Amino acid sequence: MSGSTFGELFRVTNFGESHGPAIGCVIDGCPPGLALNEADIQHELDRRRPGTSRHVTQRNEPDAVEILSGVYEGQTTGTPIALLIRNTDQRSRDYGNILDTFRPGHADYTYWRKYGLRDPRGGGRSSARLTAPTVAAGAVARKWLLQQHGTTFTGWMSALGEIEIPFESEAEIPNNPFYAPSAGIVPQLEAYMDSLRKAGDSCGARIEVRARGVPVGLGEPLFDKLDADIAYAMMGLNAVKGVEIGDGFASVAARGSVFGDELLPEGFAANRAGGVLGGISTGQDLVVRIAIKPTSSIRTPRRSIDRQGQPAVVETFGRHDPCVGIRATPIAEALLALVVMDHALRHRAQCGDVRLAQPAIAAQAAQAAQATPPDGG
Amino acid sequence: MSGSTFGELFRVTNFGESHGPAIGCVIDGCPPGLALNEADIQHELDRRRPGTSRHVTQRNEPDAVEILSGVYEGQTTGTPIALLIRNTDQRSRDYGNILDTFRPGHADYTYWRKYGLRDPRGGGRSSARLTAPTVAAGAVARKWLLQQHGTTFTGWMSALGEIEIPFESEAEIPNNPFYAPSAGIVPQLEAYMDSLRKAGDSCGARIEVRARGVPVGLGEPLFDKLDADIAYAMMGLNAVKGVEIGDGFASVAARGSVFGDELLPEGFAANRAGGVLGGISTGQDLVVRIAIKPTSSIRTPRRSIDRQGQPAVVETFGRHDPCVGIRATPIAEALLALVVMDHALRHRAQCGDVRLAQPAIAAQAAQAAQATPPDGG
Amino acid sequence: MSGSTFGELFRVTNFGESHGPAIGCVIDGCPPGLALNEADIQHELDRRRPGTSRHVTQRNEPDAVEILSGVYEGQTTGTPIALLIRNTDQRSRDYGNILDTFRPGHADYTYWRKYGLRDPRGGGRSSARLTAPTVAAGAVARKWLLQQHGTTFTGWMSALGEIEIPFESEAEIPNNPFYAPSAGIVPQLEAYMDSLRKAGDSCGARIEVRARGVPVGLGEPLFDKLDADIAYAMMGLNAVKGVEIGDGFASVAARGSVFGDELLPEGFAANRAGGVLGGISTGQDLVVRIAIKPTSSIRTPRRSIDRQGQPAVVETFGRHDPCVGIRATPIAEALLALVVMDHALRHRAQCGDVRLAQPAIAAQAAQAAQATPPDGG
Amino acid sequence: MSGSTFGELFRVTNFGESHGPAIGCVIDGCPPGLALNEADIQHELDRRRPGTSRHVTQRNEPDAVEILSGVYEGQTTGTPIALLIRNTDQRSRDYGNILDTFRPGHADYTYWRKYGLRDPRGGGRSSARLTAPTVAAGAVARKWLLQQHGTTFTGWMSALGEIEIPFESEAEIPNNPFYAPSAGIVPQLEAYMDSLRKAGDSCGARIEVRARGVPVGLGEPLFDKLDADIAYAMMGLNAVKGVEIGDGFASVAARGSVFGDELLPEGFAANRAGGVLGGISTGQDLVVRIAIKPTSSIRTPRRSIDRQGQPAVVETFGRHDPCVGIRATPIAEALLALVVMDHALRHRAQCGDVRLAQPAIAAQAAQAAQATPPDGG
Repeated sequence: MSGSTFGELFRVTNFGESHGPAIGCVIDGCPPGLALNEADIQHELDRRRPGTSRHVTQRNEPDAVEILSGVYEGQTTGTPIALLIRNTDQRSRDYGNILDTFRPGHADYTYWRKYGLRDPRGGGRSSARLTAPTVAAGAVARKWLLQQHGTTFTGWMSALGEIEIPFESEAEIPNNPFYAPSAGIVPQLEAYMDSLRKAGDSCGARIEVRARGVPVGLGEPLFDKLDADIAYAMMGLNAVKGVEIGDGFASVAARGSVFGDELLPEGFAANRAGGVLGGISTGQDLVVRIAIKPTSSIRTPRRSIDRQGQPAVVETFGRHDPCVGIRATPIAEALLALVVMDHALRHRAQCGDVRLAQPAIAAQAAQAAQATPPDGG
Repeated sequence: MSGSTFGELFRVTNFGESHGPAIGCVIDGCPPGLALNEADIQHELDRRRPGTSRHVTQRNEPDAVEILSGVYEGQTTGTPIALLIRNTDQRSRDYGNILDTFRPGHADYTYWRKYGLRDPRGGGRSSARLTAPTVAAGAVARKWLLQQHGTTFTGWMSALGEIEIPFESEAEIPNNPFYAPSAGIVPQLEAYMDSLRKAGDSCGARIEVRARGVPVGLGEPLFDKLDADIAYAMMGLNAVKGVEIGDGFASVAARGSVFGDELLPEGFAANRAGGVLGGISTGQDLVVRIAIKPTSSIRTPRRSIDRQGQPAVVETFGRHDPCVGIRATPIAEALLALVVMDHALRHRAQCGDVRLAQPAIAAQAAQAAQATPPDGG
Repeated sequence: MSGSTFGELFRVTNFGESHGPAIGCVIDGCPPGLALNEADIQHELDRRRPGTSRHVTQRNEPDAVEILSGVYEGQTTGTPIALLIRNTDQRSRDYGNILDTFRPGHADYTYWRKYGLRDPRGGGRSSARLTAPTVAAGAVARKWLLQQHGTTFTGWMSALGEIEIPFESEAEIPNNPFYAPSAGIVPQLEAYMDSLRKAGDSCGARIEVRARGVPVGLGEPLFDKLDADIAYAMMGLNAVKGVEIGDGFASVAARGSVFGDELLPEGFAANRAGGVLGGISTGQDLVVRIAIKPTSSIRTPRRSIDRQGQPAVVETFGRHDPCVGIRATPIAEALLALVVMDHALRHRAQCGDVRLAQPAIAAQAAQAAQATPPDGG
Repeated sequence: MSGSTFGELFRVTNFGESHGPAIGCVIDGCPPGLALNEADIQHELDRRRPGTSRHVTQRNEPDAVEILSGVYEGQTTGTPIALLIRNTDQRSRDYGNILDTFRPGHADYTYWRKYGLRDPRGGGRSSARLTAPTVAAGAVARKWLLQQHGTTFTGWMSALGEIEIPFESEAEIPNNPFYAPSAGIVPQLEAYMDSLRKAGDSCGARIEVRARGVPVGLGEPLFDKLDADIAYAMMGLNAVKGVEIGDGFASVAARGSVFGDELLPEGFAANRAGGVLGGISTGQDLVVRIAIKPTSSIRTPRRSIDRQGQPAVVETFGRHDPCVGIRATPIAEALLALVVMDHALRHRAQCGDVRLAQPAIAAQAAQAAQATPPDGG
């Protein structure tokens, strides 16, 4: 209720502060019998980790995850899986100057007003570091979904600040620190980041995430629609200011005569809806795009006030990504996986005994429309 | 869990189908002692009601609400408020032709795949008619929020298909059936709608909603952020494909040096964040925009399949709005009110004893940035 | 959150007051495809109904249930099932004298302190009348459980005031208004009730409820144990002051060497645990007993105070059961059915893919221990 | 949903297995600004700890709690409080013999049927060791309730096997390992335990718990009644088979003319209801009694089966309490505190603005009836 638990049946309860002793999460509701070890999780954590290129926070800690419970002899037991990540590189001295003032664009002011006090060390609970346990939980969901349904999750950066990134090849995504699906654009992105860093400034980004092999029928019709829960998950990610499903805002100016995706015996003729109709998955790719605002922690001095309401000037030193969007891709993938996982269990609970005489579109046919290369949004 | 309940503490459980005996909702958790009668609710229902102009569905029923419980001698008692709206104009004959085929862009296919059967009459549960109980519940939330906190909710249409609607004056909004904040644009909008209707086609829309007088401190930090819950609420509204808070997708190309809203002793210098920092309300206006796709029910024939997977052609007759966005404004206002209401109670539960020695920005000052006319996006 | 919703996946949201326009409930999460009509529900409502013998409240109303949604052509659709029961016989004049005073043993005082106001008509929301929607929802759960798992629910009265009722035959239960499993005791029970009524007094009762054919594996290990949820359900029934599972309080003085139910290849050798081990169902009968306090509404004058804290004397006129326990049997059955139903769906959600190489005890063998006649507690 | 989270607003998510790396919990929803350190929690943990007398498990580990998050400079911040207790004395070798067979009265069989596999080390998740995090969370609730409302919690043993323990003085409770409120009975209890241990047998117990200084108005009227939630909490405690509130099962044979607690200007004349009317607290003491079954882990050989369904004989070696009830008192106190805490926040959420012109009974007067010494049952 205080917002630290994600999901209804695959429930992830997150804890920790950026510079406290540890961060982590408890996953309750994981099906039993899933082969799981620390390496399965560590792999995803390493993708998210700071310090992996010069364009992201130079926080040098391993983010090593420890499984505290819920796994016995390499298999999940159906009881809560507690994951612990110790904070080893805390450097809380960097943040001393922000105790009494409020950084523009940050949660400093709102935390203080809500709770009457706040942990100022490294942003405390509002730090993007708290996405690490989410990524860890997402790794568990991804493994189960892959085994049970063949579902996979892929994200990439489609814009860095003013630079639109063309979608050339999914194979390129892991080859650069930006998760850009294009090799040719990388030098331009690197130069852009360097100039921002030099200027003490920051920029935003747009990320696209897709899920493939999603079972048909996930999502609840009225309020907990699959797309509503995706929007909730994505807008909750630090710095996100917008979410689109399928054609998103482009659908405003579209006509109904071309917009509604036609159905053919071999599958849907298009996927403008982004894989969801009436809040329920169609079996097509889930297509999600998010807008990330520029990092608020910048060296450039900005006007603010202190707790007494007096004018102050704030500059933020310490390590900060000039674009938090660079690390957002694996996090957005994890969030999408958590939403799909939760709805897979919810669907099984209510509709586990539904049998259709004949699905109108065979499973492989339903995927037809998405065999074409993604258009990047 | 099956998605018919909205909210955690101010809980609205919705029921009904478009052409069943009745629709309605049960509101659990409303504070006691609120003066409430049917007229309070009916007023908002009438704003949403079809049949009020030639541009919306000609469904001729009064949508009269009956309070079944939870109110005694004109005051809420703290027990569940059940609201009932009988369906009087059902015309189920209009929908006979869609029983065996799936309308493109509709939930026909996904409901059938999820549940193994579906109620085809008027879209059943997927009909936009089910937003009426939401609007009714929103009216209760609005009344309480206005009395306790002075909070108000205002929405308008900012684009109809390709037509951008300038923000001229809030006072114009109730004067036209489009909720357009401009008198001059109305003839153009009417001509556009007439041409669509003639062509058997439909278009999308963009709606902007604002909340004013929102208490500081609402929203939970990690997952149930205020903006995350707003995104969930809005994306769950029929036909919505995108949600933005504050500057939304425009923040992708912005620079941090200008983006983060500076704090001054007299209030925030800007509101690019849209009234939320770190998922918690700042006391500024909440600024939300949604993209609505074109109505899927159109006269133009479209390709589809039947339940046996054979090709079919679908034309939709019966009454349908060429733009569902026209009626979306009061619904979006209601959804925003429900989110704020729920978080007001959640905040009181956990932080009801927080006392600040001195709020950095006085209540009225916090509002300063939003005294300027809204820029529409 | 305000306590009007029962269950997590099979969710029953109750509304209404004893003398308001209507009572009812919304069931969300019912599996689709269940054949259901009003008669299925009405049958159970009629068992609970007042006015069926001279020993229970002479409230003469039919309690006719109307299905408002969630059923199409005689089958559940998977969307919310709203059930409505109009209050037709309200006689609110009988209760005028209790507006300003607090009846001993009643919720008058606590409602007023909690909410600052209360609906005094017929006990308002605290009336036992509000168990009718629970019984109606239970009828839906019972039908699904019977079809899917062969589960059945049977309750009886095992004590009326000081009179212990021997268990002779389940077949006798429906033959008398007390749900007594013995024909011979009925005249004694009737004489006892007549003497109480004459004396303007009331008595308590003990009810036993059993579920048979419960699937193995229902219940969550730590907090939402099956027996914990049963205790929650039963203690929430009006006037209940105690709950036992299996041997209950008799287990205090028992020895471990005889208490733990041994397992044999043909099934459990006994059922002292009452069908639950570690919070999870064993496949044996669920055995539950509840203690019901004497009706608080009696003619005998009692001391109380008024809202100003001044002494007052309260006598309760109007219709009241001298023993509310007489009507409790079908309600307790319904509550047990709701708990089992909810856990059946929860179990399917998490463990729907669990396959055991060989269940240690075959399904029919697991039942062996309960083939013997119940011992009544 | 998988049963590892307790509470709605003060939410405690428990994790761990008896012989895994660690156990612990995450408390979400704690009000900010509460002074809290490890010693506050350790004190209660030490009361529950095994190894403190020869009558309880000789498990020699300190159960040292570490606060991982949610506290900054000695105050709760409003964010999740994660508590970690490392398992240091695991001795898993003691349990090797139970991997393939099912101990009578244990959860071995049901876990295996539910999940298809189980962690056999020390009972895994079904071990009473998992009550330690609950006690730790209860310590936080107790501290807040004491500061905000003056609420206190006291429990004692009222029966050990066949021995009824008279209530002589609360002051005696901490002076003996049984939590017995009588000094004179202690030698008899010790002799009884010694004889059981010698015989390789075990016995049950009855525990009584009280809360004093409970605010009036806690509890939700229909389903989440305060007594219902207490019954849920208590029945969920390992080995509990029965729960009573107030007069409990004794109310079956009582008469209404004496049972309903009369109200006097100076307070209630009695407390047969146990502090709850209509599911809502009256301001009197909460009076709760629980029945605990004999420990199932005993040396005496018992019949069982193995996973292939073949007959087997089970003897349990290793350390086990001959009466788990001996350590149950601080756990039951913690559970009661968690229920009251959760309802205190729930009440504040909905009714935080309720103001009564004049409470009928002044706060101190409401307590009058409970100044008399408790009668023990």
